[in-house]
Amino acid sequence: MAGSVFGNQFRIMTFGESHGKGLGVTIDGCPAGLSLCEEDIQKFLDRRKPGQSAFTTARKEADAVEILSGVFEGRTTGTPIALLIRNKDQHSKDYSNICDKFRPGHADYGFFSKYGFRDYRGGGRSSGRETAARVAAGAVAIKILESMGIFVHAYARSIGPVTAETVDLEEAKKNPVCMPDAKAAKMAGEFLEKCIKDQDSAGGVVECVVTGMPAGVGDPVFGKLDALLAQAIMSIGAVKGFEVGDGFLSASSTGSRNNDAFAVREGRITTLTNHCGGILGGISNGEDIVLRAAFKPTPSIAREQQTVNEAGEELPITIHGRHDPIIVPRAVVVVETMTAITLVDALLSNMGARLDAIIKFYGREL
Amino acid sequence: MAGSVFGNQFRIMTFGESHGKGLGVTIDGCPAGLSLCEEDIQKFLDRRKPGQSAFTTARKEADAVEILSGVFEGRTTGTPIALLIRNKDQHSKDYSNICDKFRPGHADYGFFSKYGFRDYRGGGRSSGRETAARVAAGAVAIKILESMGIFVHAYARSIGPVTAETVDLEEAKKNPVCMPDAKAAKMAGEFLEKCIKDQDSAGGVVECVVTGMPAGVGDPVFGKLDALLAQAIMSIGAVKGFEVGDGFLSASSTGSRNNDAFAVREGRITTLTNHCGGILGGISNGEDIVLRAAFKPTPSIAREQQTVNEAGEELPITIHGRHDPIIVPRAVVVVETMTAITLVDALLSNMGARLDAIIKFYGREL
Amino acid sequence: MAGSVFGNQFRIMTFGESHGKGLGVTIDGCPAGLSLCEEDIQKFLDRRKPGQSAFTTARKEADAVEILSGVFEGRTTGTPIALLIRNKDQHSKDYSNICDKFRPGHADYGFFSKYGFRDYRGGGRSSGRETAARVAAGAVAIKILESMGIFVHAYARSIGPVTAETVDLEEAKKNPVCMPDAKAAKMAGEFLEKCIKDQDSAGGVVECVVTGMPAGVGDPVFGKLDALLAQAIMSIGAVKGFEVGDGFLSASSTGSRNNDAFAVREGRITTLTNHCGGILGGISNGEDIVLRAAFKPTPSIAREQQTVNEAGEELPITIHGRHDPIIVPRAVVVVETMTAITLVDALLSNMGARLDAIIKFYGREL
Amino acid sequence: MAGSVFGNQFRIMTFGESHGKGLGVTIDGCPAGLSLCEEDIQKFLDRRKPGQSAFTTARKEADAVEILSGVFEGRTTGTPIALLIRNKDQHSKDYSNICDKFRPGHADYGFFSKYGFRDYRGGGRSSGRETAARVAAGAVAIKILESMGIFVHAYARSIGPVTAETVDLEEAKKNPVCMPDAKAAKMAGEFLEKCIKDQDSAGGVVECVVTGMPAGVGDPVFGKLDALLAQAIMSIGAVKGFEVGDGFLSASSTGSRNNDAFAVREGRITTLTNHCGGILGGISNGEDIVLRAAFKPTPSIAREQQTVNEAGEELPITIHGRHDPIIVPRAVVVVETMTAITLVDALLSNMGARLDAIIKFYGREL
Repeated sequence: MAGSVFGNQFRIMTFGESHGKGLGVTIDGCPAGLSLCEEDIQKFLDRRKPGQSAFTTARKEADAVEILSGVFEGRTTGTPIALLIRNKDQHSKDYSNICDKFRPGHADYGFFSKYGFRDYRGGGRSSGRETAARVAAGAVAIKILESMGIFVHAYARSIGPVTAETVDLEEAKKNPVCMPDAKAAKMAGEFLEKCIKDQDSAGGVVECVVTGMPAGVGDPVFGKLDALLAQAIMSIGAVKGFEVGDGFLSASSTGSRNNDAFAVREGRITTLTNHCGGILGGISNGEDIVLRAAFKPTPSIAREQQTVNEAGEELPITIHGRHDPIIVPRAVVVVETMTAITLVDALLSNMGARLDAIIKFYGREL
Repeated sequence: MAGSVFGNQFRIMTFGESHGKGLGVTIDGCPAGLSLCEEDIQKFLDRRKPGQSAFTTARKEADAVEILSGVFEGRTTGTPIALLIRNKDQHSKDYSNICDKFRPGHADYGFFSKYGFRDYRGGGRSSGRETAARVAAGAVAIKILESMGIFVHAYARSIGPVTAETVDLEEAKKNPVCMPDAKAAKMAGEFLEKCIKDQDSAGGVVECVVTGMPAGVGDPVFGKLDALLAQAIMSIGAVKGFEVGDGFLSASSTGSRNNDAFAVREGRITTLTNHCGGILGGISNGEDIVLRAAFKPTPSIAREQQTVNEAGEELPITIHGRHDPIIVPRAVVVVETMTAITLVDALLSNMGARLDAIIKFYGREL
Repeated sequence: MAGSVFGNQFRIMTFGESHGKGLGVTIDGCPAGLSLCEEDIQKFLDRRKPGQSAFTTARKEADAVEILSGVFEGRTTGTPIALLIRNKDQHSKDYSNICDKFRPGHADYGFFSKYGFRDYRGGGRSSGRETAARVAAGAVAIKILESMGIFVHAYARSIGPVTAETVDLEEAKKNPVCMPDAKAAKMAGEFLEKCIKDQDSAGGVVECVVTGMPAGVGDPVFGKLDALLAQAIMSIGAVKGFEVGDGFLSASSTGSRNNDAFAVREGRITTLTNHCGGILGGISNGEDIVLRAAFKPTPSIAREQQTVNEAGEELPITIHGRHDPIIVPRAVVVVETMTAITLVDALLSNMGARLDAIIKFYGREL
Repeated sequence: MAGSVFGNQFRIMTFGESHGKGLGVTIDGCPAGLSLCEEDIQKFLDRRKPGQSAFTTARKEADAVEILSGVFEGRTTGTPIALLIRNKDQHSKDYSNICDKFRPGHADYGFFSKYGFRDYRGGGRSSGRETAARVAAGAVAIKILESMGIFVHAYARSIGPVTAETVDLEEAKKNPVCMPDAKAAKMAGEFLEKCIKDQDSAGGVVECVVTGMPAGVGDPVFGKLDALLAQAIMSIGAVKGFEVGDGFLSASSTGSRNNDAFAVREGRITTLTNHCGGILGGISNGEDIVLRAAFKPTPSIAREQQTVNEAGEELPITIHGRHDPIIVPRAVVVVETMTAITLVDALLSNMGARLDAIIKFYGREL
């Protein structure tokens, strides 16, 4: 388990570095028969693409995806789908002055400790650019979910000290900070402008809501649906916290307030509240799945910082290059797609849960 | 992947239900040569055992562990270690009146949706009692870590609205709520007594600190050490949130405050602060690993609640039986042991990271 | 991956040594709703049990299985099924004179090289007794297959130089060598008596036939159904060769003879011959699956042999204790059950192969 | 587990079809610090490349490999190595007349049954061309092994009815059938010419020998080294049998002849014979590993054959296009590389077997 594989039945392996030849992903286990073309994937990559607002790096990347395999006559064949995104705009020289220094808040020191040396160009494999491959794979997962009536939407719940008070999904698509609340988005923009002026950076919280998830998906014990989502989301660079439903708030609640009473509405079993976030005991209960990811502030800041080099000498470091003052707006689509990948995998695994359903599936009623 | 397996190189599979014959775990991949006897494991199980204070269920379980395999002449042999804990005190009849109703806040409805029927006795596989098997396996992991100078300590950081202000590990061992702050522990006890009187329950936050972890462990991308810890911890029943380092707080910080400056102290590379919680880019940096888990209030409360039965009828439910008013004190050792299992697995996987180290390991300098 | 886990969706982990407290297995991913009791499993263990003829070890083991979990009110619940077989008749002292010597043809030297020491009592984990746990798990797999109209039958195709010329499954159940040909069985018995008199041992070939397997199961590339069967069967102690269909014979055939022509019979696509053994390109084609395993002669023989001890000294070794002059008759049920485990796992994995089937499974036609 | 992933610590995922855009593989878990360039991989691909003799397809493919990631300044970084081979010479039109017919001996019917439709161009994913990706990954594995003094050599042991009587590795590199015996190679060539004239094809046996393997590698029970090799080799298209050491021959041997006596030679524990093929109880014993794979005759033959189409109608089929009259010579390097991949994975997994070695590895003697 070397770290770049995720999922079991719907399994992805990613590759690529910030300043290498490109990034990519292979999906093994995508069901056959899904209509798929490059544009289906490109539109998700375009949401993650840099250079789209004042709050994202000026690096210009077309991030054009090429489907290398697994699609025949416009449909997936069931065999591996390889997706390749070539790097175009690599300013490797920007990094030459820091090649033997460990940038604070970055993975540099960890990589050096683990591997003995590292690709210092833009973080190499630990660059946020790595997430492009996740988004490409996740675009396929989202298309599968949508064919089943399951929809995934994420947005910035908070940016620095500013929290969205309302949730208007359409609004989140319009403003550069992906907040579902126009007023909060405006305040967040002002806050970020100040950050840039201060040569500083900000963090925030991404919230993700899944509608249409059937009840009964996820496994007991270690394979809990929220545990798998936690791994998926915490594996995104810069995420320091994860919660589902009321999350940390529930720790200070009481059982009588936190339990969601069951009821029947329109002939369907439902809950009157959704403190649990759609998952109980690790298994979906048919309500909306609600999760949140806490992103730390971008570690690359223009201010001089204190660090150490590979020789073990203390010295100052100034990071040039092009960096987002905040990761959150571009991470929204990463959270959506990692959520989708996890759910597709869980839905496929779940098909073997009941013997009667298996017998029926294989048309083997004896 | 049916949910009861965790880890890759150090891999466990658990089994058992609250009211079946017993619980257990098999560890595959435990290194050979570890001194191990039942008492090494029993002392951890005793910390999780019910009936030890006014704040835990009155159920009496010796939770005596039997080593079935994998140990020869007092040492592990490298082959699977099977551990069995027989159930003794099973009041199955307590549950008979709720066998076709879905308890709010429990996994009942999910299990029913997934499997078509369920073991309704005390939650069956979704009972908190399932964690006994985790603790048994984790006791072995902790012994491995300690042989390497790595130590894991958890405690209750908060209980309901009460938060520990100081961290005194010795104090946490003394009071019934496992808080590292005597004053807070007293307030928490009073709060819990009120909960019981109100026929209600409470939640809390468990914090876990790992000392002595070497730098360079964990994998980039999906195999990030904090992502694996997130899965491990979120897979514990009733956990709704996970964070590492400053976690959700870091989302409202700034890069200049949140980055940990590197420095050299006593000839060793270290950081001046530890906002990151010992993990950067998914790889340990040699500082203390700090993580937190948010536990929701115990869902089993004595008050009447509103629910639905298997026939889809709305009706009230009253849960009898014996239940903890709070899960946190007994969950402290579960967080410790799940953390330890994750770290041992990561340490073993990490040994193949560098070719020079592999060649040296096999004595193959050519 | 420490070696004692097999399968993905239907996943087993075994444990136990020849002379420890017992052997066992946990099955994770068994579908819910299968009727299951101990007798269902016991009857398979009884076929593997020693002491049933002149050609098996005199060791007396009841091999009584206990279901520890995963079954409620006579049906599997979908949660892990733990099965325990306690050892009863352990003559550990028989092995004391060889505890520091490496028995030729055994795993002793490998275990010592790998782990630095070993449980020398009867081979410990490398004993043939380990297969009891496989048989217990496989009994459950066979019950699943039978509920789908899939049947698995194995028998001894050859014993030493004697080969069965006819295949009469009923006959194979009657004679002590499990040969499907009465005449060959008689000759094999005479051959084995001579082996015993010569203080020697014999090998043989087990053949296994699966009927009723649906077409379209198995995965391309590494997950080929015959590749997974090869791992399953080669993992049985003493197996040195595996083949499917015409196997090694096909290497000296020609394409025109070896290809199986397709035809339609009774409205169903079939093949006129079955040289391929029911699997083409790693995927079942709906014909009978036919495989064979070559078992080497029992390595424990009464004759004095030449060996080396842990100190690196050459010296003679005489193996006392009770040993089968041939493994094959008791291995027949092991081949059947390992085949069944592999097929159930493949059938479950296969359910996610087509998007239209998934959408239908979840009742999500939009 | 969708079939295109192999290995655990050294893990590969392949993709690509015969007539798509290309083939490729990503290696996750390659140790950092291995010197690697495209030429290291190309030389292995060149051995598999078509068009090199009268006995291989006339299809012209440069099979030029591009390293997309994971190598920095000439060394592997420890992160995924993605390798891409673009298809050049795709005569898709050759296949148009058979697009709805199932070719005998091919995977067509299985793919159609499983996925509901298939990429009919040259077998798509089930084409022998798929093995190019395995060879590319295996070239990296071989380079790792060689850095440890472990060498892997394969050759054709037999072709149709012709068997090599001697083993001269240099000779195997010279003749077009890769036989290690010049006289046998000449006879095999004559036999193959006759096959071509007869519009027929032939099979054969590939033998592989590994020298320098340390003792103690491989796991007990399901993770036996020979079981993993069996999966690896049986997963190569057209392989119908696998054996290690004396293999099927050992089934008719006796214990006294088949056991390999241990002895000490030049201060090293060794065996006087090697009937076991270097693996006992699934663990290497330090002797040469010897394995064999039986390849069936190429299923694509020019003669008219009987088949069925997707509509279920019986009809004749004539396969045009360019096909090898025998797979074996080009498969030799595939067997070598799959063997190497399996061994590297086992060597890495094995590093965690002993606690004392782990403690020493991490420099943690306390």
